[in-house]
Amino acid sequence: MSSGRHYVITLSCPDRTGIVARLGAFLAELGASITEAAYHADVEAGVFCTRQVVDAASVPCDVDELRERFAPVAEELGGEHRISDTGVRKRAVLLVTKDQHCLHDLLGRVWTGELPVEITKVIGNHASLEPIVTAHGVEFAHVPFPAAGDPHREQGKVTAFEEIRKLVDADSPDAIVLARFMQILPAHLCEAWAGRAINIHHSFLPSFAGARPYHQAFRRGVKLIGATCHYATADLDAGPIIEQDVIRVDHGDAAADMVRRGRDIERLVLARGLRWHLEDRVLIQGNRTVVFR
Amino acid sequence: MSSGRHYVITLSCPDRTGIVARLGAFLAELGASITEAAYHADVEAGVFCTRQVVDAASVPCDVDELRERFAPVAEELGGEHRISDTGVRKRAVLLVTKDQHCLHDLLGRVWTGELPVEITKVIGNHASLEPIVTAHGVEFAHVPFPAAGDPHREQGKVTAFEEIRKLVDADSPDAIVLARFMQILPAHLCEAWAGRAINIHHSFLPSFAGARPYHQAFRRGVKLIGATCHYATADLDAGPIIEQDVIRVDHGDAAADMVRRGRDIERLVLARGLRWHLEDRVLIQGNRTVVFR
Amino acid sequence: MSSGRHYVITLSCPDRTGIVARLGAFLAELGASITEAAYHADVEAGVFCTRQVVDAASVPCDVDELRERFAPVAEELGGEHRISDTGVRKRAVLLVTKDQHCLHDLLGRVWTGELPVEITKVIGNHASLEPIVTAHGVEFAHVPFPAAGDPHREQGKVTAFEEIRKLVDADSPDAIVLARFMQILPAHLCEAWAGRAINIHHSFLPSFAGARPYHQAFRRGVKLIGATCHYATADLDAGPIIEQDVIRVDHGDAAADMVRRGRDIERLVLARGLRWHLEDRVLIQGNRTVVFR
Amino acid sequence: MSSGRHYVITLSCPDRTGIVARLGAFLAELGASITEAAYHADVEAGVFCTRQVVDAASVPCDVDELRERFAPVAEELGGEHRISDTGVRKRAVLLVTKDQHCLHDLLGRVWTGELPVEITKVIGNHASLEPIVTAHGVEFAHVPFPAAGDPHREQGKVTAFEEIRKLVDADSPDAIVLARFMQILPAHLCEAWAGRAINIHHSFLPSFAGARPYHQAFRRGVKLIGATCHYATADLDAGPIIEQDVIRVDHGDAAADMVRRGRDIERLVLARGLRWHLEDRVLIQGNRTVVFR
Repeated sequence: MSSGRHYVITLSCPDRTGIVARLGAFLAELGASITEAAYHADVEAGVFCTRQVVDAASVPCDVDELRERFAPVAEELGGEHRISDTGVRKRAVLLVTKDQHCLHDLLGRVWTGELPVEITKVIGNHASLEPIVTAHGVEFAHVPFPAAGDPHREQGKVTAFEEIRKLVDADSPDAIVLARFMQILPAHLCEAWAGRAINIHHSFLPSFAGARPYHQAFRRGVKLIGATCHYATADLDAGPIIEQDVIRVDHGDAAADMVRRGRDIERLVLARGLRWHLEDRVLIQGNRTVVFR
Repeated sequence: MSSGRHYVITLSCPDRTGIVARLGAFLAELGASITEAAYHADVEAGVFCTRQVVDAASVPCDVDELRERFAPVAEELGGEHRISDTGVRKRAVLLVTKDQHCLHDLLGRVWTGELPVEITKVIGNHASLEPIVTAHGVEFAHVPFPAAGDPHREQGKVTAFEEIRKLVDADSPDAIVLARFMQILPAHLCEAWAGRAINIHHSFLPSFAGARPYHQAFRRGVKLIGATCHYATADLDAGPIIEQDVIRVDHGDAAADMVRRGRDIERLVLARGLRWHLEDRVLIQGNRTVVFR
Repeated sequence: MSSGRHYVITLSCPDRTGIVARLGAFLAELGASITEAAYHADVEAGVFCTRQVVDAASVPCDVDELRERFAPVAEELGGEHRISDTGVRKRAVLLVTKDQHCLHDLLGRVWTGELPVEITKVIGNHASLEPIVTAHGVEFAHVPFPAAGDPHREQGKVTAFEEIRKLVDADSPDAIVLARFMQILPAHLCEAWAGRAINIHHSFLPSFAGARPYHQAFRRGVKLIGATCHYATADLDAGPIIEQDVIRVDHGDAAADMVRRGRDIERLVLARGLRWHLEDRVLIQGNRTVVFR
Repeated sequence: MSSGRHYVITLSCPDRTGIVARLGAFLAELGASITEAAYHADVEAGVFCTRQVVDAASVPCDVDELRERFAPVAEELGGEHRISDTGVRKRAVLLVTKDQHCLHDLLGRVWTGELPVEITKVIGNHASLEPIVTAHGVEFAHVPFPAAGDPHREQGKVTAFEEIRKLVDADSPDAIVLARFMQILPAHLCEAWAGRAINIHHSFLPSFAGARPYHQAFRRGVKLIGATCHYATADLDAGPIIEQDVIRVDHGDAAADMVRRGRDIERLVLARGLRWHLEDRVLIQGNRTVVFR
């Protein structure tokens, strides 16, 4: 990969002969120098997907004009497309509860410039992670949730999520990251943030969806535990999977050891999934994803 | 590990202070040279497990006398124990259908002496694998199952399993290996062969139990596929897990590619699980296993 | 991937703008339906590589005519290209000594149709593997090598390799697989078979090149052991790497255990590397490879 | 593992019959409840190693008295031993340069209580990491090194290392962690800190020792890159290995991508190796380690 500025074009459209030629001709006419190109034809679904990265310096126009010029090609091919400019920093909002391992890891990756994103805000339903966030120079917003015994709990949750929605939408983020946010996102927010809300679940889905997955894993006696990064949908823990990985455990690992050891894999899987999302490497196809790594 | 003859002692008993000392004293009195020793205390269940390997040459008696001498110690400690003699070759019977990858792999491992077992017999419900079995010098027994449309299918299955039971029990095998045997073992055979019947399931259980797991995996869009070696119990695909492993897949892998790629992991997982079982490394604790690798 | 007949086009050429467009136009004019396409631009070396798979049924000509039609495009772009027809079975010759694990694994994969190749011949410098080869219906040629103390040893080796050369070249194989063939291939054969001679080395190269790699690994106290599948070149164990993998070991593993456990990884790495070679997924770039998986 | 206070006994001694019995009897007499026990007999070297963890509440004395009582047993068995009290927090000093990924990761693990250690001080030869260190409430000491062109560079290094030695020794740390400290530790410090100085090297040793390992890896065209956590010795990158791991790369990864992707594996390998060291799980045997995980 070159280190300079690039335009990233992604496209999903009905498969037919000549798409590669059409795109190739368009880019050749522009004089665009292609630095990465990936294709995938889903024969069963009849869908063609591609991601192409061109050197911005080779293209005689800015990203807006590129979008304009590409529009008729995209219309001709049908489907959906997007053109990103790596010179424009993407934005993410993080939602957290008390667990700090994913949060701390992402803050560190942004701090060093490894992850190409600006974290505009971290929203927590507990105040305990505020110091670590502000120490990294990021704004922290505390949106408390009603306690377990609260008689107005359901209404309180509605109010809290409404406040979260406003805080998130104010930043128009490219990613809303549920970095071990232990609350279930309401369906209307899943919909509003479709394709942008990214969750990390601490199991190898579809095994052990729902609560306390490591304790479920311990009881079942599995020999590997895992983590899954997926897009949040109204169907809990069942959205399109971006990335998964596992780590070996054995009979010596109690559920508490699995919790501790699982953190390493959660951190990695979330950081990888988020990076691919930010780099426009992930194309959602129904409940599956194409990931051009 | 020494290459000579060994006695392998395994013990599971209620945990209490002094077990290690009691076993240590017993072996020290015998003058036994311990070449491997592993311990595990399951604090929650209050169970202590151990596996100890002693150099047969260091012990002034044969395995029968060792068993006799150890009996009062075992009785004192309670629980279950077993003493194996690596000088006595273990026996296995394999059950197969049409898929030959696990069968061929196990035959090869036995042929080279890598797997410490004699395959006394391979039983298949199709005749197609007979040539590969006999080419390796192993007896093949064909027990056909009634076809799908057969009006007496259920009775036919009962008869077939009765024949299989006789063929298996005639060899008193230490392991009955379901090497991609696509029939569901009846509950009474699971019970009769409890702790000896070993199945390979082509998914990372508990995900995708039951039929066509790779097709289930494809539809769910997982990024890793796996295999699970477990003891067969009456509860389908839910028995104690011995070993699991996974392999990475991506959007380019159709269900058929997963089937093909999964074979590599099935082979390995079954071979490892079977080896550990044959070397008395696996102790069943309820629905979980302790594996002293 | 479709299960039908395909033409596979691979090309490496100097990188410049418009290659994708040129290829795309060529295929679109033919009406070719592209089922797989992968690209790689090596910016540093200024080399562009691609592999494209088209459905044979979509192309109005046979492979010879396709080659003829493509020739001017290839000439225009420069570099090297190849067009394969998956309807024509590739051929491989295997060279072995006494270790049978890789041999047995490859024979099994061919037997089941998993590996798209015909093994035309197995050549061994010991006769011990003849039965396993002929049991799989493959011809075995025994070419003995002079013993260690033989005064005419060097001359004997020359003669033996000359015989091997004739036996191999008689079959015009697409792959010459050194499936744990423990003799060093002479430089002139490496050259004659450049890009076709595939070796499996039992270490994670460049660590532990040369003899007895597991014993070297044991002495160094590494925590992972590995295997490397690479093209044989005159520079021992230094040719372009196709595939590598590792397996975890620990202090309980003696060198002999590493030898045993390493076999599993050798088998897999060789089978994967060979498959990619046979499917024209591997493009050699100097001492590195591009592998379009 | 229980969450309470434990005493951890480690012992390496000449192997002979009766060691397990002797230790077992000692602990049984004390009434000690063993929660973890691991053994290893290195047959070739004739060395026996063990690690035993006992519940502090089950032992009728404090750790000093336990050490006193155990002394005659240890003397009888010969070799080396150590008794740690998990109720006494261990101490670590970190040495860093400019790379912050390992530092940030360790600070986060300590912050959450995941890693059982107090970081008493971070010493850097650049000031750039001071903010991240102090944000975590840890002292930062800046010890600048002479620049490349400095005529008194060698003497300047000697002075700098002398200052580092004083800063480190003032804290009597249980671990001196070279968390991507890019200076070569002088031989006399390696000796003074033998068994306590832990380095993370960014390659799968013994491949690519020395400078710029990812660039070496890129040029060799390996398909996996790795990291190695080892004890620092006077022999550069050749000390006893504690832990290693690898990550897959392909032709699309330039050296810079390997640098970035390698960070994830460096972080994990260092954190694991350091944890095992702090938990007294690592016993050095010549140039190899026994790791009781």
